[in-house]
Amino acid sequence: MLHHIGAAGGVAAVAGAMQSMGWFGAAHAATLEPMPGNLGNGRSVIVLGAGFAGLVAAYELEQRGFSVTLLEARGRVGGKAWTVRDGDTIKMQGEADQVARFSEGLYFNAGPARLPSFHQGVLGYAKRFGVPLEVEVNSSRSAYLVGKNGRKLRMRTAINDMRGHVSELLAKAVNQGALDQALSVDEKAQLLPFLKAYGDLEGEYEFKGTTRSGLRTSPGAGVSSFETAGAPVPLSELLANEQIAMMGFEDNLYMQATMFQPVGGMDQISVGIERNLQQRAVLNADVRRIRQSASGVDIAYIDTGTGTARTLKADYCVCTIPFPVLAGIDANFSKPVASAIAGVVYEDSNKVAFEAPRFWEQDQIYGGLTFVGGETSLIWYPSWGLHGERGMILGCYSSGPPGKAFAQRPLTEQIAMARAAIESVHPGHGDECSAPLVVNWRKVPYSLGPWPNWTPGARGRGEHAATDTPAFRLLNQPDGRIVFASAALSQTPGWQEGALASAHASVAAIVRQMAERSVTERSPRAAAA
Amino acid sequence: MLHHIGAAGGVAAVAGAMQSMGWFGAAHAATLEPMPGNLGNGRSVIVLGAGFAGLVAAYELEQRGFSVTLLEARGRVGGKAWTVRDGDTIKMQGEADQVARFSEGLYFNAGPARLPSFHQGVLGYAKRFGVPLEVEVNSSRSAYLVGKNGRKLRMRTAINDMRGHVSELLAKAVNQGALDQALSVDEKAQLLPFLKAYGDLEGEYEFKGTTRSGLRTSPGAGVSSFETAGAPVPLSELLANEQIAMMGFEDNLYMQATMFQPVGGMDQISVGIERNLQQRAVLNADVRRIRQSASGVDIAYIDTGTGTARTLKADYCVCTIPFPVLAGIDANFSKPVASAIAGVVYEDSNKVAFEAPRFWEQDQIYGGLTFVGGETSLIWYPSWGLHGERGMILGCYSSGPPGKAFAQRPLTEQIAMARAAIESVHPGHGDECSAPLVVNWRKVPYSLGPWPNWTPGARGRGEHAATDTPAFRLLNQPDGRIVFASAALSQTPGWQEGALASAHASVAAIVRQMAERSVTERSPRAAAA
Repeated sequence: MLHHIGAAGGVAAVAGAMQSMGWFGAAHAATLEPMPGNLGNGRSVIVLGAGFAGLVAAYELEQRGFSVTLLEARGRVGGKAWTVRDGDTIKMQGEADQVARFSEGLYFNAGPARLPSFHQGVLGYAKRFGVPLEVEVNSSRSAYLVGKNGRKLRMRTAINDMRGHVSELLAKAVNQGALDQALSVDEKAQLLPFLKAYGDLEGEYEFKGTTRSGLRTSPGAGVSSFETAGAPVPLSELLANEQIAMMGFEDNLYMQATMFQPVGGMDQISVGIERNLQQRAVLNADVRRIRQSASGVDIAYIDTGTGTARTLKADYCVCTIPFPVLAGIDANFSKPVASAIAGVVYEDSNKVAFEAPRFWEQDQIYGGLTFVGGETSLIWYPSWGLHGERGMILGCYSSGPPGKAFAQRPLTEQIAMARAAIESVHPGHGDECSAPLVVNWRKVPYSLGPWPNWTPGARGRGEHAATDTPAFRLLNQPDGRIVFASAALSQTPGWQEGALASAHASVAAIVRQMAERSVTERSPRAAAA
Repeated sequence: MLHHIGAAGGVAAVAGAMQSMGWFGAAHAATLEPMPGNLGNGRSVIVLGAGFAGLVAAYELEQRGFSVTLLEARGRVGGKAWTVRDGDTIKMQGEADQVARFSEGLYFNAGPARLPSFHQGVLGYAKRFGVPLEVEVNSSRSAYLVGKNGRKLRMRTAINDMRGHVSELLAKAVNQGALDQALSVDEKAQLLPFLKAYGDLEGEYEFKGTTRSGLRTSPGAGVSSFETAGAPVPLSELLANEQIAMMGFEDNLYMQATMFQPVGGMDQISVGIERNLQQRAVLNADVRRIRQSASGVDIAYIDTGTGTARTLKADYCVCTIPFPVLAGIDANFSKPVASAIAGVVYEDSNKVAFEAPRFWEQDQIYGGLTFVGGETSLIWYPSWGLHGERGMILGCYSSGPPGKAFAQRPLTEQIAMARAAIESVHPGHGDECSAPLVVNWRKVPYSLGPWPNWTPGARGRGEHAATDTPAFRLLNQPDGRIVFASAALSQTPGWQEGALASAHASVAAIVRQMAERSVTERSPRAAAA
C-alpha cells in the first residue's frame, strides 16, 4: 500500500492472481504462463508479419509445439523496429528513395529507440536471446528548453530555478498561515525544512539562486576562482518559455531513468528472436489474399523476390499486419471486423536524422533531448559512441497534429527545418549536419503509420489516447480462426511492450479456441462411441 | 545572462579572459593555456606521487620540454583512482589483508567511480588517450529512499507524489490570493496551468495520484487491465521519511545526468595518461627524505621491491603526496609550511563491496542509488554488465561523521552492517552477497584519507566544505622549489577534476618560478659582462 511499486509489482501481482485463473488470462504479463510444450502438436499457424508482435507470437507458438510459418512482406524482420545502416534504402510512398550514407558504426533507429526499465517483457527477450543492451540517456541536465523567442534554458537551470521559486512561494504561503487548514501542525513543521532543501533556499526561505542550476564561476585550484551560483532566472521568464512543462518529460513513467537501447540498433532484439525460431521467417512474402473456412485459413502471397505466387494453409492465423495495410488486402473477414479494420485511424510520426561531428559534446551534452516545440518538436542526441568523431543526431521527432503538418511538406523542406532547429540551438553547426534521412511513417510501405489513435481528437491524462473503443474491443477478439495482434491492439500502441502483450494474448486466444473446438469436435465422436 | 550555462560556459569565459593575462593564470581551466613545447628544455622536475594530480603534472611538464621523473610509492599508478580486480590485495593499517575474489569481468572502484559532464578536464584526458567511457547511471527512478522505520519509497513515487502535493498546495495558496503580493497578475495566470502539468493535478488543482509514481495496474493488450495510478502517498508520510531530501541528490551539480565511468574501471584514465609519458612512472618508490637548497631538490627513496635506497636530484619538485603521509616524511620545508602540512585534517570515507547475482534487476533497478542513511548511507548498484549473471553492489558508501564511526568498527561488523542494509531493502538477498571487500580510506597506506576537510565542523551550502583557509592558501604557494599539488589543494577535494586543476596550477607555478629566476640569475652575469 505504501509504495505503488510500478509495473513490476503490478505484473507480479496480476501474474499471481492469474495462477488461480489458469494460463489463459495472463496475456498482458511480461511472460506467458507456463503451458505444456506439446500443446500445439499437430496444429499449424500462419503468422502474418515479422514485426515485434509477429516474432513474439511465432516464437511462443513454436515453444508450445505449434508448427508456425512466419510471413514477412519486407526483406527484413523487425517491422517498425527498423535500424537504418549505411547503404540501406528508405522507400516511402510518393517520395524519392533515400539511400543512407553513414560513417562507420553509425546507424539510425527510424522507429522505437528506447526501452523503459518496466518493460520487462522486451527486456526479458533481450536477455533470453543474449542481445546486449546499453543505457539510453533520455534526460540530460545539459540539454535545453527553447522558447519561441529563441531563448534557451538549460534543463538544469529550468528544473532547479523553477523548484527554487516554487519552494520559496510555498514557504511564504505556509509562513503566512495561508495553508493552515490544509496542513497539520506537524506537516507544517516538517514541510518548511524540506522546502529549504528541496528548493536550495537561504535564510528566511529565500531563493537567491543555486549551483544546481549551473555555475557562474567554476571551482578551480588554489584561490583563483571559487565556485559561485548565478542569479536565478526570474519566475516570469521561466513561465514564458513555451517548453517549460517539458522539464517534466523525464518523469513520464515511460521516459524515466534507467532506459536502454540494444547495442548496435533497436532491430537487434527482433533479429535475436528470429534467429531462435525453429522455422525461420519467410521474407519478401507480400500477402494478397486471406481466406478462412470452418476447417482452416488459406493465405496467398507473392514472393516479391522472384515474382512467384504461393499459397499456404494452416489451422489458425495470427495477423499482425497494420490495419491500414490490411484494409487493402482481399480477405473474407466478417463484415463488422472488415468495417472496424477500415476505420482505424493511424497517427503521424516523423524522424529526421543527420550525422555530424559531435559538436553537442563541446556543449557538454551527452545524450538526452532538447525540446524546441513546433513541427520538429525536439532534438535527440545519441547515447552511444561517446567521444567518437561523428555521431547521429535527430533534428526532428514529431507526431500528433504538428507531425501531420510536417509530413506533408516536401522532404527537402523537412530536412531544412530539422537543420534549422539544430542551428538555432547550436549556432554554426547546422551546416555540419550531413547525410540527412527522413522517415514519415505514414508513407512507409507495409506500415502506413506508426500507431493508431483509437480516439482521434481525444487524449487521456496519461501519454496514450484512450484505447477502449468498440473497434478496439472487436479487433481484440478472434474473427473465426484469425487472431489479430500488434501494439495497435494493446493499450500502449507506441511501444514494443504493447506488441509483446498483444502477441502473448494471441497465443492464449488460439489455445483457448483449440480447447473450445476440442470439446465441440470431440462431442460427435463421443456421441458416436 | 539568461542561462547560467554551468561550468563549460564558466571555463570558456574565464579561459577567454585568461588569454589577455597570458598563460600563467589559467590553471583552473580544463586545459592549460598553450606554452612553447621547449619551455622546460634543460630543466628537470621530480613529481612525487602518480595519483591523478601527479600523472597530469608529469604529462603536462613533459609536453613542455621538462625532464620529468615520476615516483610512486605503490606498485600501481592512479592513487585513489583505485580499481580492485580479482586477485588484488587490499592492505589497510591495523587490519588483516583482504584479497579480492571476484567472478570474471567484475571490479570494484574503491575510490572515485563517476565523472560529471562538466568535468571537462578529466573527460578531455580520457578522450585524448582513447580511454572508452560508458554511462554511469547515478539516478534510477526504481531505487528507494528508506526511512528509519524500514519503509521504502520508490524514488519515482517520492519525487512525483511530493511534486504533486507541493503543486496542489501552492495552487491552493495562489487561488486563495495568498500570494497576490508576490506574484504579478501575469505570473499568476501562467503559474496555475504550469502547476497543473508540473504536479499532474486534476480538475480544480487537486492531486489524486499520478502514473509517474508507478502503476497500480499495468497496461496490457486487449481490455484485460487498463493502466491506473495508485493513490498518492500522503504528504505526512513522505515528509516522515528521513531520506526524503535525497530525492534531490540527482540535482546536485556534481551528480547530474549525464555521468560517466571508464569502461573496465576508473583507473583506466590514470593508466592511459601514464602510458603516454615519455619517461614512465617509477613504481614502488617510497619517498623517505625531501631536501631542497637554493640550487635544486634532492629526493631519497627506497625501492620497496628490492629494498635498495636511491637518491635523485632535480631543479624542481611537484609534491602530490597526501598531507597526512607527507607529515611523516623527513623534509626541510619552511616552518609555516611544515606546520600547515601537519595540521591538515582528513575526512573518512568507506566503501563495502560485494558481488552477487543481479537480484536488483528483478526489482527493475539498473544502476543508481538507494539511500538508507545511517553509517552505511547508501546502496550503489552497478551501471555495467546489465543482464549479466553477477554484478558488483556497494552496501555502504559513507563519509563525514557517520563514516568516521563506521570505520572504527571491526571489518566483520562493517561487512555485516552493509549486508544488513542490502537485506533490509532487498529481503532474502543479503546472503547472496559474497566476496565482501572493505575500504576505509583513512587506513589505506600512502593515502591515509580520501580528502581533507579544510574547515572541520563547517560545511558550505554546496557540496564541499569551504576550502579558503590560511593553510589552504599557504600550501597553494610553492615552498621554494617545491610546489604542492593534489585534489586536496583544489576547491573540490573529492574529485579528480580538482586534482587536475591543481596539477595544471603546479605547472604554471614552476614556469612562473623559472621566469622569475631567469631574471634574477641573469642579472649578475649581465653585470659581469
